[in-house]
Amino acid sequence: MNTLHGGDWAGYRERFGAEPLDFSASVSPLGLPEGVRRAVVAALSQSNRYPDPSCRTLRALLAQQTGLDPAQILCGNGVSDLLYRLALALQPESALLPAPSFSEYEAALSLTHCEIIYHPLLREEGFRLTEGILSAIHPGVSMVILCQPNNPTGLTVSPELLIRILQRCRVCAALLVVDESFLPFLECPGLFTLQEHLRDNKNLMLLRSFTKSHAMAGLRLGYALCSDTELLHRMYLAGAPWSVSCVAQAAGEAALGEEAYLAELRSLICRERPVLCSELEGLGCSVLPGEANYLFFSSPMTNLSRLLAQRGILIRDCSNFRGLSPGDYRIAVRTQEENRRLMSEMRSIIYG
Amino acid sequence: MNTLHGGDWAGYRERFGAEPLDFSASVSPLGLPEGVRRAVVAALSQSNRYPDPSCRTLRALLAQQTGLDPAQILCGNGVSDLLYRLALALQPESALLPAPSFSEYEAALSLTHCEIIYHPLLREEGFRLTEGILSAIHPGVSMVILCQPNNPTGLTVSPELLIRILQRCRVCAALLVVDESFLPFLECPGLFTLQEHLRDNKNLMLLRSFTKSHAMAGLRLGYALCSDTELLHRMYLAGAPWSVSCVAQAAGEAALGEEAYLAELRSLICRERPVLCSELEGLGCSVLPGEANYLFFSSPMTNLSRLLAQRGILIRDCSNFRGLSPGDYRIAVRTQEENRRLMSEMRSIIYG
Repeated sequence: MNTLHGGDWAGYRERFGAEPLDFSASVSPLGLPEGVRRAVVAALSQSNRYPDPSCRTLRALLAQQTGLDPAQILCGNGVSDLLYRLALALQPESALLPAPSFSEYEAALSLTHCEIIYHPLLREEGFRLTEGILSAIHPGVSMVILCQPNNPTGLTVSPELLIRILQRCRVCAALLVVDESFLPFLECPGLFTLQEHLRDNKNLMLLRSFTKSHAMAGLRLGYALCSDTELLHRMYLAGAPWSVSCVAQAAGEAALGEEAYLAELRSLICRERPVLCSELEGLGCSVLPGEANYLFFSSPMTNLSRLLAQRGILIRDCSNFRGLSPGDYRIAVRTQEENRRLMSEMRSIIYG
Repeated sequence: MNTLHGGDWAGYRERFGAEPLDFSASVSPLGLPEGVRRAVVAALSQSNRYPDPSCRTLRALLAQQTGLDPAQILCGNGVSDLLYRLALALQPESALLPAPSFSEYEAALSLTHCEIIYHPLLREEGFRLTEGILSAIHPGVSMVILCQPNNPTGLTVSPELLIRILQRCRVCAALLVVDESFLPFLECPGLFTLQEHLRDNKNLMLLRSFTKSHAMAGLRLGYALCSDTELLHRMYLAGAPWSVSCVAQAAGEAALGEEAYLAELRSLICRERPVLCSELEGLGCSVLPGEANYLFFSSPMTNLSRLLAQRGILIRDCSNFRGLSPGDYRIAVRTQEENRRLMSEMRSIIYG
């Protein structure tokens, strides 16, 4: 029904009758952590019960980890579920969205007739968010959504600029939503989060995901952090009460203990990303200095994703992102062996 | 956060420090079918991928089973997810809801500022839906939602009346939504469904659930059947694209083969329900002749659910259903042994 996003292995299978090697979805290449898998299997014995709509155990663990109160945490059926709940709960009159960025921000907000103001990230500025955004935030803006690091570019916003944006939003009574779905892939996530500013800023909401960092895309789990607990409660009421399955809750509870998995993951990404980057540049691509588990590049070849699909590999054609064009692509950073295969196929396509 | 519904084992555990025997949620007492459990465990190997947002395999199987086109089927994260999507997609001006019935109809519709018209089911008429509803459906009504059999009463609407309601809705350009979540528990489900009328009535939508019939409440899976495929597509867009997890999809695909499980379930329910009914009557309760896997009864004791909770048993206090009062209760029909335990505790409470 919808091929707006990467990760469309099912569409690929329908078309080619085979399973692709998927670089189009930016998910941990290490697979579901074994501890998470075991927790999910154990949880199946309770799958005859409705899930706890309040996700009490998971929220208590997240509260411990973040130092927040459980009431400041809302779990959802993936970050995307939380975005739709937020749009419905707040029904903002207007929202400022940098472009390009994740298209679900726009999709969720458009359901409630929100006026969307796009803040273009310019190719000639390397798609960086600059302090130019500060003047775009004015008292008529109800909400600003940033993605840290941004999807699909992988670029971070400096902590200094982020704090100035937060202050500006506060002055203008705008809610600042920061989607930190890909934050765990950064070398030093702690430097780039606004978590410590949550307590003093009711106009700040952070969105986080287990989906990408713990290879749980199929299980669906995200959460929102916000000290405006009344807003979180309205979000809870803005959708079905049992949206987080018992399996997702058990997976999230177990995932919080997977520190070694995350360390291995970060080490893999930090090792492989520069290799991929220089190989792409060697192939004539223009690559952004992304810091996440994916790389954004531009190529003179506008049919690259189609040609790779014929060779069993999915990459993300970014031409349907607002502000991007044919020839813009995103690839996940995967294991050394998988990355080599991608590069080998790209070489073969480019040099024939 | 919300204790509007039955099945709040987590709230019970928080309060009493133990797991209750749960008669408050009307779920199959036979547990997750073994074939479904195996399918879910196998699906975990794919949980690093995003779920197929189109649920292609599951919809193809449902299309086979129902004789409909896959485009006439939309899967959701439980029936409740579909209700919120429907409310958002259609944003009806007004909706007619019999009361008492499932409270999520009202909760979903109230998000979109829909005017809700309640059609009271009267205690003195045994809470039956009568042809009186026909005159309540007029051209100002955008939508009618019925539950077949009704929750919490367990009463069915006769096929004849249902067809007259469908015709009346058609004349008035109202969408008729029939929630068939508990239909599989009827002795002859085929007699009470409007499925054969789907093709010729674009103003008819059926909602179905695996949650109750296959003890999959924790996994979340429901689907909508409607020949207005444009409406289904708008519902698909009215929420996150990946709402049905890979686990729920695999579970649903396997559940469709569980005919023997369903036969055993129906046989258990049909055997146990009359026993429970007459025992409740023997205890001075007034019991409705429900046909589902639960029974609705009224008792002079308004503190019955509290007293049973102290004895480790949850039942559904129905006093927060619109149109019901303290002393109204719903209990699930469970296994013989479990039902005996409930009756024994009730006897002990009533006779001291």
